[in-house]
Amino acid sequence: MSSTGDDDRDSDEIVIHHDPDIYAEDGSLRSDFLMHVGAAIADRDTIYLRQHVAGLHASELGDLLEAIQPEQRVALVLLLGKDFDLAALTEVDEGIRLDIVEHLPNEQIAEAIGEMDSDDAVYILEDLDQEDQEEILAKLPFTERVRLRRSLDYPESTAGRRMQTEFVAVPPFWTVGQTIDYMREDDDLPESFTQIFVIDPTFKLLGAVDLDRVLRAKRSVKIDAIMRDTSHSVPAEMDQEEAAQLFEQYDLLSAAVVDENGRLVGVLTIDDVVDVIQEEAEEDFLRLSGVGDEELSDSVAEAARSRIPWLFVNSITAFVSASVIGLFDATIQQIVALAILMPIVAGMGGNAGSQTMTVTVRALATRGLDIHNAPRIIRREAGVGLLNGVIFGAFIGLVAGLWFQDPDLGGIIATAMLINMMAAALAGILIPLLLEKSGADPAVSSAVFVTTVTDITGFFSFLGIAAWWFRIA
Amino acid sequence: MSSTGDDDRDSDEIVIHHDPDIYAEDGSLRSDFLMHVGAAIADRDTIYLRQHVAGLHASELGDLLEAIQPEQRVALVLLLGKDFDLAALTEVDEGIRLDIVEHLPNEQIAEAIGEMDSDDAVYILEDLDQEDQEEILAKLPFTERVRLRRSLDYPESTAGRRMQTEFVAVPPFWTVGQTIDYMREDDDLPESFTQIFVIDPTFKLLGAVDLDRVLRAKRSVKIDAIMRDTSHSVPAEMDQEEAAQLFEQYDLLSAAVVDENGRLVGVLTIDDVVDVIQEEAEEDFLRLSGVGDEELSDSVAEAARSRIPWLFVNSITAFVSASVIGLFDATIQQIVALAILMPIVAGMGGNAGSQTMTVTVRALATRGLDIHNAPRIIRREAGVGLLNGVIFGAFIGLVAGLWFQDPDLGGIIATAMLINMMAAALAGILIPLLLEKSGADPAVSSAVFVTTVTDITGFFSFLGIAAWWFRIA
Repeated sequence: MSSTGDDDRDSDEIVIHHDPDIYAEDGSLRSDFLMHVGAAIADRDTIYLRQHVAGLHASELGDLLEAIQPEQRVALVLLLGKDFDLAALTEVDEGIRLDIVEHLPNEQIAEAIGEMDSDDAVYILEDLDQEDQEEILAKLPFTERVRLRRSLDYPESTAGRRMQTEFVAVPPFWTVGQTIDYMREDDDLPESFTQIFVIDPTFKLLGAVDLDRVLRAKRSVKIDAIMRDTSHSVPAEMDQEEAAQLFEQYDLLSAAVVDENGRLVGVLTIDDVVDVIQEEAEEDFLRLSGVGDEELSDSVAEAARSRIPWLFVNSITAFVSASVIGLFDATIQQIVALAILMPIVAGMGGNAGSQTMTVTVRALATRGLDIHNAPRIIRREAGVGLLNGVIFGAFIGLVAGLWFQDPDLGGIIATAMLINMMAAALAGILIPLLLEKSGADPAVSSAVFVTTVTDITGFFSFLGIAAWWFRIA
Repeated sequence: MSSTGDDDRDSDEIVIHHDPDIYAEDGSLRSDFLMHVGAAIADRDTIYLRQHVAGLHASELGDLLEAIQPEQRVALVLLLGKDFDLAALTEVDEGIRLDIVEHLPNEQIAEAIGEMDSDDAVYILEDLDQEDQEEILAKLPFTERVRLRRSLDYPESTAGRRMQTEFVAVPPFWTVGQTIDYMREDDDLPESFTQIFVIDPTFKLLGAVDLDRVLRAKRSVKIDAIMRDTSHSVPAEMDQEEAAQLFEQYDLLSAAVVDENGRLVGVLTIDDVVDVIQEEAEEDFLRLSGVGDEELSDSVAEAARSRIPWLFVNSITAFVSASVIGLFDATIQQIVALAILMPIVAGMGGNAGSQTMTVTVRALATRGLDIHNAPRIIRREAGVGLLNGVIFGAFIGLVAGLWFQDPDLGGIIATAMLINMMAAALAGILIPLLLEKSGADPAVSSAVFVTTVTDITGFFSFLGIAAWWFRIA
């Protein structure tokens, strides 16, 4: 737990200054540790901070930054100075990252970035404004500047933006012995790697060799005899989500990233891909409930901004549904029981519709649902809707009939439930499918459409049948 | 694309018989490929199937099994016979897996399992009933039987169940040269590996060396000089979700799995962890909408079974909310506009509450929300609720007042909206937090409680204020 040199700091693999004592049972940071850190920040006790904070793993330091008070964050970073591992910023919310980076001198950022893996460096640089970015890049050695700029030139959320530009590449005619000797002598190798790429003199990618293959082969074996094809190399322009799917499908640990001419420009590693998978799952999860790009560190105004658009759209559709009820005001005035029961029909339809919709949106996101099995799933959902309609129509019809001592009312609500459960099932599957087919993100807008369908169908069928049955209009 | 030997088949790493032509643009299997396969199955054309299907990667074969008709699946597997790569069964829904395994003779399963990585083998064995499991295990060589039984003895969803029992381990006093020579000569190494473990004679774990470290070190260097500590080894009894969080936090590629005495029993690899992360995210996603453990291949009855419990609970709470409306039947009879507008108040509250709840449940699942920042987030959500209440209270009050030409009504609905938006915000964050604290899964039951709160608050505040204001009771 003592202070740590630069060499240790930017490596996840060699020595981890892991202090198991900083986490409590439930996975959150221990309160007494946070208290000590808070006190040390208040007292400007850099000795304590160097001893107990500087040596933390980047992700532990990230957890710490997220747990302390916002006003303590910048203070902690400034107190640690060069002992603050900037890689921790890749582990925190964007809001916190930007707040801290803003308070650091560009010199310190440039120095830290020079020591980082290129993918971490890009992660921090990409959020900065153009001016700061240029100022920091200008302070870096030529090779690193060129490498980082190449990554930054690729569009956001592409493999090129997420790749690491440090890799090991050898020509195909080298022997295993030559390759091992090269690795023993070269000091400029990446921090850690799991495969060696094989390239021609123009950097065109020819193949790859996993390290275990190198270790199993005799020294005299030529590299091209043990290399495998790289059918799973990733074009730099490929969307990160698509690249993540390749990793998942073929259980890759890392993949070569190539430019439009098939030249090796970097390597995408599984740890970045895990982050992408997490982000994408989170995005769908939040969007389905009408929450935009939101982070836990967001302020009231930022959080409200991410949620108000959907609430606004819903308030419009709520008025549309209300106007359907308005068509039957005379009916309601005579039979108030209808007003009491109608939210049940609409609400149950909404719940059933959202179940089907959630299953559909998730299946679309994981590519489990496509044109080949869509007809089968649509038939299944219609079957589930029918079954739900019969079961809950009967149950709710019975309870409502007993409650109001009116078998007619029970029969009417049962029929309306059956209709609305069928509508819910079809809306729940067809709306996301149609949105996907039209190129829209089904996670974003399915919910509005589905609840509008189930509200309108629920109110219209229940009140409409009642008006017709009791002959009130 | 020609036929493939056993040695190639169970490896993801060496030669991938990848046929890029089988996928269409949108990532689904190409229709003409499916048509050809379907025709070949119908014609029992084993030559076509061996040529075009047997060589597919396990995950491609899995996609194919999911895309063809249920009755074609078993036929395809039986036609391919020993050329069918059983590892494909780890890539399909449990329902499809069980259906296929049931139709295969235990001899064929045993033979295939003998060739698989142990983690894949356990994945298939664990779903079988005790009798079949024993029969298959009995047909395996002693060592493999012991290894698989050891994995199967660990509870479901633990690291011990998901681990691979094949690994490379060496004593600490070996040199790098000895280690490389050992790997060059031993034919019984795992298919692929990224680190070497260091153990004492009793198999107690002492450390680990990543392969790139081995390659960089001189032959004379002792292993214990380059090994790192294994503070991130995983106890075999650890829940897979907890293990996945370790992988994420420390960007691990693989981790040693140890028994209660610290002895090395297996290795957990990142590809299994990616599956766990996916599963857990999916589970929360589905549960929040009241869908249980459900698969796309489920029948109508199975899907209905996973969804009816939640719909049933909701139908009960819907009656409770309806009875709140029932308290105000006299008020509604005199002012029908109340019946028309009341679903807007309840519905908007439900939407806002579900936004907050979704953010909270997700933050709890990813451990972003804990006791240290909970007070801050609760204050934020209360702020968002107040802001939403003011904005949508004003907007909906204005529209409703104009619609019914009644400023009083506008004022009443605005006030009710403000109250319900605040209730929604507090319910949306406090209910998941309390459920988590009491040890329940917040994803499962938060939604029922939150909508019940917003429905009751919405109806009671709107109708109650109206009854008091217009003095009707």
